[in-house]
Amino acid sequence: MTTNHKLSIIPLGGVNEIGKNMYVIQCGDDLIVVDCGSKFPDESLLGIDVIIPDISYLIENEDKVRGLVVTHGHEDHIGGIPYVIKQLNMPIYATRLTLGLIKGKLKEHGLLGTTTLHQIDSQSEITLGSVPISFFSTNHSIPDCLGVVFHTPQGTVVHTGDFKFDLTPVNNQYADIHKMAEIGKNGVLALLSESTNAERPGFTPSERLVGANIQEAFYNAEGMIYITTFASNVHRLQQIIDAAAKTDRKIALAGRSMVNVVDIASTLGYLNMPQTMLVDIADVNKYKRNEITVMCTGSQGEPMAALGRIASGNHRQLAVHPGDTVIFASSPIPGNERNVARIVDNLFERKASVIYGPGSSTGMHVSGHASQEELKLMLTLMKPQYFIPIHGEYRMLHLHRQLAESVGVNASNIYILNNGDVVDFAGSEALQERKVSNGDTYVDGLGIGDVGNVVLRDRKVLSADGILIIVITVGKSDNKIVSGPDIISRGFVFVKESEGLMEEVHRITLNEMEQLQDNNLHKPWNLYKQSIKESVGKFLYAKTKRRPMILPIIILV
Amino acid sequence: MTTNHKLSIIPLGGVNEIGKNMYVIQCGDDLIVVDCGSKFPDESLLGIDVIIPDISYLIENEDKVRGLVVTHGHEDHIGGIPYVIKQLNMPIYATRLTLGLIKGKLKEHGLLGTTTLHQIDSQSEITLGSVPISFFSTNHSIPDCLGVVFHTPQGTVVHTGDFKFDLTPVNNQYADIHKMAEIGKNGVLALLSESTNAERPGFTPSERLVGANIQEAFYNAEGMIYITTFASNVHRLQQIIDAAAKTDRKIALAGRSMVNVVDIASTLGYLNMPQTMLVDIADVNKYKRNEITVMCTGSQGEPMAALGRIASGNHRQLAVHPGDTVIFASSPIPGNERNVARIVDNLFERKASVIYGPGSSTGMHVSGHASQEELKLMLTLMKPQYFIPIHGEYRMLHLHRQLAESVGVNASNIYILNNGDVVDFAGSEALQERKVSNGDTYVDGLGIGDVGNVVLRDRKVLSADGILIIVITVGKSDNKIVSGPDIISRGFVFVKESEGLMEEVHRITLNEMEQLQDNNLHKPWNLYKQSIKESVGKFLYAKTKRRPMILPIIILV
Repeated sequence: MTTNHKLSIIPLGGVNEIGKNMYVIQCGDDLIVVDCGSKFPDESLLGIDVIIPDISYLIENEDKVRGLVVTHGHEDHIGGIPYVIKQLNMPIYATRLTLGLIKGKLKEHGLLGTTTLHQIDSQSEITLGSVPISFFSTNHSIPDCLGVVFHTPQGTVVHTGDFKFDLTPVNNQYADIHKMAEIGKNGVLALLSESTNAERPGFTPSERLVGANIQEAFYNAEGMIYITTFASNVHRLQQIIDAAAKTDRKIALAGRSMVNVVDIASTLGYLNMPQTMLVDIADVNKYKRNEITVMCTGSQGEPMAALGRIASGNHRQLAVHPGDTVIFASSPIPGNERNVARIVDNLFERKASVIYGPGSSTGMHVSGHASQEELKLMLTLMKPQYFIPIHGEYRMLHLHRQLAESVGVNASNIYILNNGDVVDFAGSEALQERKVSNGDTYVDGLGIGDVGNVVLRDRKVLSADGILIIVITVGKSDNKIVSGPDIISRGFVFVKESEGLMEEVHRITLNEMEQLQDNNLHKPWNLYKQSIKESVGKFLYAKTKRRPMILPIIILV
Repeated sequence: MTTNHKLSIIPLGGVNEIGKNMYVIQCGDDLIVVDCGSKFPDESLLGIDVIIPDISYLIENEDKVRGLVVTHGHEDHIGGIPYVIKQLNMPIYATRLTLGLIKGKLKEHGLLGTTTLHQIDSQSEITLGSVPISFFSTNHSIPDCLGVVFHTPQGTVVHTGDFKFDLTPVNNQYADIHKMAEIGKNGVLALLSESTNAERPGFTPSERLVGANIQEAFYNAEGMIYITTFASNVHRLQQIIDAAAKTDRKIALAGRSMVNVVDIASTLGYLNMPQTMLVDIADVNKYKRNEITVMCTGSQGEPMAALGRIASGNHRQLAVHPGDTVIFASSPIPGNERNVARIVDNLFERKASVIYGPGSSTGMHVSGHASQEELKLMLTLMKPQYFIPIHGEYRMLHLHRQLAESVGVNASNIYILNNGDVVDFAGSEALQERKVSNGDTYVDGLGIGDVGNVVLRDRKVLSADGILIIVITVGKSDNKIVSGPDIISRGFVFVKESEGLMEEVHRITLNEMEQLQDNNLHKPWNLYKQSIKESVGKFLYAKTKRRPMILPIIILV
């Protein structure tokens, strides 16, 4: 790998995927990291809890890493921090709310105090290594979001963070649209802009639209109101609190992350709720049902989150009564529809009124990400010479590229990258021809990166058809069978159904052992094991069309 | 269980779920079965291939089962037939296309000739046992669909099958709306009507709408066209063929079920395609790209279906070239969005134009099921005294109930049932108070019903954290350890990462064996095993936060 280049841009996570965002701006001997997210594994990654970026490249350059700048407090931007900080200590720069959420994470992992935390805001100007950095504020589904501007000797590099243009934002958290215009006017060498909603035509509606609909639903509701949304959507929470205040309802909180976020956001002043409005969930039943609103987790149908437990009748303090109203102030994320539907089924069985479905149909949710016209607006404001669409799967990056071309970015100056791809700038000439280490690092329990493909492949086989263990003890001196074969199965087939099968496996195993002994092939034992595996496997597949893992164990005594 | 009742209606599959439809109409000593579907397992049912209804009740009453009437040829109505027929032989009644598809299934399972097949049509009148049965034709996303009318002494029972009202159907397959009106006029005791789209307001658009949009896309396409849809949607296939004919394109077929359905439907006259239009996929490259349309499987993003393999570059004969057009004439079924998105990503990477997304946004798909206004139309036509919403998850049944009430059905005459619930009619009085055997029967490989909860629970544990096997051989005479503990793990952790861990497991196991022996607790061995399991489990969880299955094996020699 060459290091002659003065300026390089390297995504380590977040392109060709949704999640685990991590981008590196390398300027001479200074590496600055933007975001450190996690992502959730799909079903094929059995037993994996969370995925974080492979940071080998950062570790190789540990002495040059100047800091981590975090754009906002969502999991796909901060979720990897506790795991990464254990491997590579670096100072963290973030806004007040984002820092609050990061501190919560570090505390949970017993890591508070292991790294320095620097509070910034959209007006801050910092220098990491030799790179001056400034910021601009954006609208998104969590307060205190930043775009990041790197003033490098080669030119200005802009990273948008996550954004939409909400011209009537809740809490007056306006985006710095004039600052963006000025940055663009002064010249942008390269823009990295998020692509989540590049498939959506038009302009994403303002968060205020949801507020109006929530309010109307509150006026119409008769019993208790359960309302669920992403806890981190503080603007949404504020609008729920406002609707509750207007309809003389108290607020109770259900679900760990809801309690957590409301606590942090209230303490830091991002949430405006009189303490007298808050009711402990243990006291909810002391009020009339139409005096209470419960803000709860579980908007994605998670069966163990608060709403999931309430719906299935497994919540210790809360229950749905006939006539209660349940509002999903959310849209099911693709893949979660079936879980949400299960919860809705349960709520209807308990005779609740339920407002559910995609946000576009209920008006109870709007996206926090820029749609096509907003993406074009950002591109137009920044007028970048080079454009790198980030934060999205391939089709989103691809469509974002088409949008960039449509507003005048030169097609040959647009780079759709894979994680690990490097764009090097020499003067204002860009070159993409090298790659650094990259990939998914799996976190399973306390292990970071200790579960790899072999382990996952084994889990896959075990999950589909279980395991059959065959233990044989053999005398050291005479190679005669002392005991066994003992056959034990798990996850394969009912014991009572399998009697005939197991007798046959017993016979086949003995047969293999004899054949091999007849051939005077006393060793290596691996040969015996392989033969047993193959013969038993063939037999079981013919009889059952299943392929359990077959594990022959030969013990010498 | 009492059998005094003259008429009973019993769902054995299809209520509170989508899939495995099976309803029983019992009239005195005559049991008539409607449909015999399968459903696909969700991810939690590890290794299960397909789910069919529990037919214990039918087997108990084998001598009274008069036949199976099949409403149409979709998997959720015919998919269980090969598995059920092995356990319970009964004559099958279905329309020509449906029978063609059933025959294909029976052939595949080597069951052709084991049961009698009777061809009927919407004008047929048959008598099973002592029950006269007539039919009416409906519109749906496969031709030759039936509603079923049971003329029992207690009154008329109507089962709608799957339906929509398509007033401009493709191939002039009109629904018997006048016949439905007449049935309603003559009086319906009970209506069983499908609920799939009870959540959708309005009226489902006509299939012809899709035809017009496909035609327009064909006119605009420049390269080869790949178009994917459910193979069984013969009307859709016909419209694709028509669009190809108008734009001078030949048709090639990719995917087993596409070849299969086109073959059956063409042979039986449901598909009108001149033989000269059909091109073998091996010959596709002999034509100009704009002379070919490939109809392929894979509309739900199945990675191993034709389109999935084409998109990932793994199809033997077909490849996407820049400028080709790929059309999803389909909507992703909830849960399949991510798989479809993967395919779209791959297609964009190959520089295809891709038309994808929900049918409502692309106009390339319409549902085959009745929306709310159509459900109300069916209820209005039939004017039933009793109403049982079927074919849907709870919220759909619940909303269908509300629709029925809105058009005048008496709320107390509406039954939302669980599978196995029985509604008994004595005269025109209905009573729901008993239940028959019911449930999911799992098919795994060749086994029907031999995988149950214990096996699935084991697979779950194995899939999440793998297995750790500890083998110890103990001398029979002195209870001393002869060899071991030998520790073998699969799916738990990398071997090289686990050395320290395994040494500790070794030590803990020896310790447990000694302690127990010190206590003179030589037997039962289960006690030793349990202690090892607990101690090792605790240790591993503390060290790794994982819970592998721990399987101590003590061999006496």
